[in-house]
Amino acid sequence: MYTLTTLRAVPPFAIGQVRDLRVRWALEEAGLPYRVRLIGPDEQVAPAYRKQQPFGQVPVLNDDGATLFESGAILLHLGERSPDLLPAEAAQRAQTVTWMFAALNSVEPHVGNLANLIVFSAGEAWARERRAVLEEMALKRLREVDAWLAGRDYLVDRFTVADILMTTVLRQLDGTDLVERCAALGAYKARCAARPAFRKALGDQMALYSPERQIA
Amino acid sequence: MYTLTTLRAVPPFAIGQVRDLRVRWALEEAGLPYRVRLIGPDEQVAPAYRKQQPFGQVPVLNDDGATLFESGAILLHLGERSPDLLPAEAAQRAQTVTWMFAALNSVEPHVGNLANLIVFSAGEAWARERRAVLEEMALKRLREVDAWLAGRDYLVDRFTVADILMTTVLRQLDGTDLVERCAALGAYKARCAARPAFRKALGDQMALYSPERQIA
Repeated sequence: MYTLTTLRAVPPFAIGQVRDLRVRWALEEAGLPYRVRLIGPDEQVAPAYRKQQPFGQVPVLNDDGATLFESGAILLHLGERSPDLLPAEAAQRAQTVTWMFAALNSVEPHVGNLANLIVFSAGEAWARERRAVLEEMALKRLREVDAWLAGRDYLVDRFTVADILMTTVLRQLDGTDLVERCAALGAYKARCAARPAFRKALGDQMALYSPERQIA
Repeated sequence: MYTLTTLRAVPPFAIGQVRDLRVRWALEEAGLPYRVRLIGPDEQVAPAYRKQQPFGQVPVLNDDGATLFESGAILLHLGERSPDLLPAEAAQRAQTVTWMFAALNSVEPHVGNLANLIVFSAGEAWARERRAVLEEMALKRLREVDAWLAGRDYLVDRFTVADILMTTVLRQLDGTDLVERCAALGAYKARCAARPAFRKALGDQMALYSPERQIA
């Protein structure tokens, strides 16, 4: 049985964006049941938790004896246990792993810098000076993924964990029109986000952080 | 035979930092011979190259039929072919993969933001306003890795590809004292950079970009 560790409470801007969403989505796609363990700020800084997650962040996944952190590593671990997530065929597998790293190391840094500016710093002087450049840098990467997706439904020949990572990266720009300015990319994101496993995973995260539950 | 694609020429600040260094280092550790294919700006934007590397970047590794990009994916691919790079034992392997993603997705974004500011924007108004915050964010992550390394020689029980990624991430801050302010982390970086395979890989990259060769 898998146990997913995530945060007990988050600020409003983070609801629907907490990275446990990636793990929930993968588990739903693979039909793997899991339970949720909730932690708060005290646990995040506690030495016992830092031994599991040195940055004090979420998600952490416990798979019987093994403890994993980093959403990318967790998704690769689950992929190795479910062909629904990661193709067994060598070339498809290599392409999937490549796109997992691309989503997290070539796209997310640019997308994240812009998303963080919008959420945390939009009114600051440096951000007003810098915003157009960060938008341009993010859009450049989005257009490169858009070009790759021309004629493709997914990053590889079929849906994989790479699409889970890329879609959740792209969702950080919800509230801007940057993704939708790229026709193939916008359609790709909508295609991935329409999957029942994504809707279920997102619904479960939203329910956890619903105002009723946060007050209760 | 492996073929590593990298850039024919780079600006001075990039010498010793081009990400082909990660692949060279891994190949040297594993004792795997490789040849180098050099490309220039024209190839980087050519459609044929974009089919191999959608962002027009380097490195690309060709392994007979397979073409891989993203240094993280390439190192994982090489790791699966060499136990010198990636332990076969399940728990060690999972920890190595976790730290590969941690180096690239939890540490490098912060380190890279500061390094890019220093190289490209140090004199700009936004950068003067923002620099202290970016230093603080990078240092926070460095201290968390430093705490993990207390009592450890490497990120996992032994040297792995995760150490190649982390060391090359840390080297982006050469010229600052941030890494060295963290005692265990500074010693770790020095320990990794003293390895003969790293010295050989760095020497080969430096030789490629030596002034004599760039002019010739």
